[in-house]
Amino acid sequence: MQLIGMLDSPYVRRVAISLRLLGLPFEHRSISVFSSFTQFQQINPVVKAPTLVCDDGVCLMDSTLILDYAESLAAPGRSLRPSTRSELRRELQLLGLALAACEKTVQIVYERNLRPAEKQHAPWLERVGGQLAAAYAALEAELARAPLQLDNITQAGVTTAVAWSFTEMLLPGVVDAAAHPRLADFAAQAEQLPVFLATPAA
Amino acid sequence: MQLIGMLDSPYVRRVAISLRLLGLPFEHRSISVFSSFTQFQQINPVVKAPTLVCDDGVCLMDSTLILDYAESLAAPGRSLRPSTRSELRRELQLLGLALAACEKTVQIVYERNLRPAEKQHAPWLERVGGQLAAAYAALEAELARAPLQLDNITQAGVTTAVAWSFTEMLLPGVVDAAAHPRLADFAAQAEQLPVFLATPAA
Repeated sequence: MQLIGMLDSPYVRRVAISLRLLGLPFEHRSISVFSSFTQFQQINPVVKAPTLVCDDGVCLMDSTLILDYAESLAAPGRSLRPSTRSELRRELQLLGLALAACEKTVQIVYERNLRPAEKQHAPWLERVGGQLAAAYAALEAELARAPLQLDNITQAGVTTAVAWSFTEMLLPGVVDAAAHPRLADFAAQAEQLPVFLATPAA
Repeated sequence: MQLIGMLDSPYVRRVAISLRLLGLPFEHRSISVFSSFTQFQQINPVVKAPTLVCDDGVCLMDSTLILDYAESLAAPGRSLRPSTRSELRRELQLLGLALAACEKTVQIVYERNLRPAEKQHAPWLERVGGQLAAAYAALEAELARAPLQLDNITQAGVTTAVAWSFTEMLLPGVVDAAAHPRLADFAAQAEQLPVFLATPAA
């Protein structure tokens, strides 16, 4: 199968890292939804990254849905999903926050980069910026309550680290690392794992 | 548990319908992320609809993640998820398209409604409009290949019907019903199911 999309997208990157952690072979094709729009369109007319193209040509999109499928393909014992309901709930709680942080970062970047300055709307940037700050504040508080594990990392761990690195790279200084020491430390350590080093955002 | 958000959001509505189909009791609180921003913020500082507030106060967000948790709570045999891997892949394929249609509709509505006319960016509306059309064209083609079932409706069925009704309501005439007869017919029939009638978008 093929994973289509650039690793500078946190959604593409979390899928690529997860496929590797799950031991699922894939070909990665770095095609941009912006600079290679037409090429992407020929693969998936909806032009959404990531797209997973199965060997029979069926396209899946939406990183959470792709990961759901990937989990169904993985060998027993290689899941990134906790097995108990209470662990699952915490996993989904953290994932909701990390994905919200990704979404809000993307919305800010799109507002700044995809339209001329005179089309940018300050109230929107303010709203989304506040939501971004709230997501990372809640994540930091959750990590203070119970740390994320690096060994036997789960999907919430992968996505939290990918989200933090993404925001730091695209919006440097917007979320203060000193005010989020647990997040910054967890992401820094995760980025040193072989699978993260093998799947660089840039 | 409480489901927070307005049913005019397709993400909130698909969760509400699914919780009912799964037989999971909940209190629905119609709080807007726009007109009741501050009230929503006090429940979930990230202000994302839907938010699921568990009985111990833990907040989950992101409709797909909430539905994942809901599936874990449901009694055996009440799942909205197919059981075989090939059925699951098709389910996720359709869900990816239906969720893309929701996202692109939201992006168009936000561009038109959340900013003054002089801040609206025509190239963005054109890009997103094309993606919206592509998502519904692909869904229609998939329904031609194999219809969605109304009895024993799955999550893909719920979300496809909710997405179609949402786009028709918010962007009337933008996606031509006559060119998508299977989608229009499936959604019309789904909207007559008791659980859909009990969970109206407006």
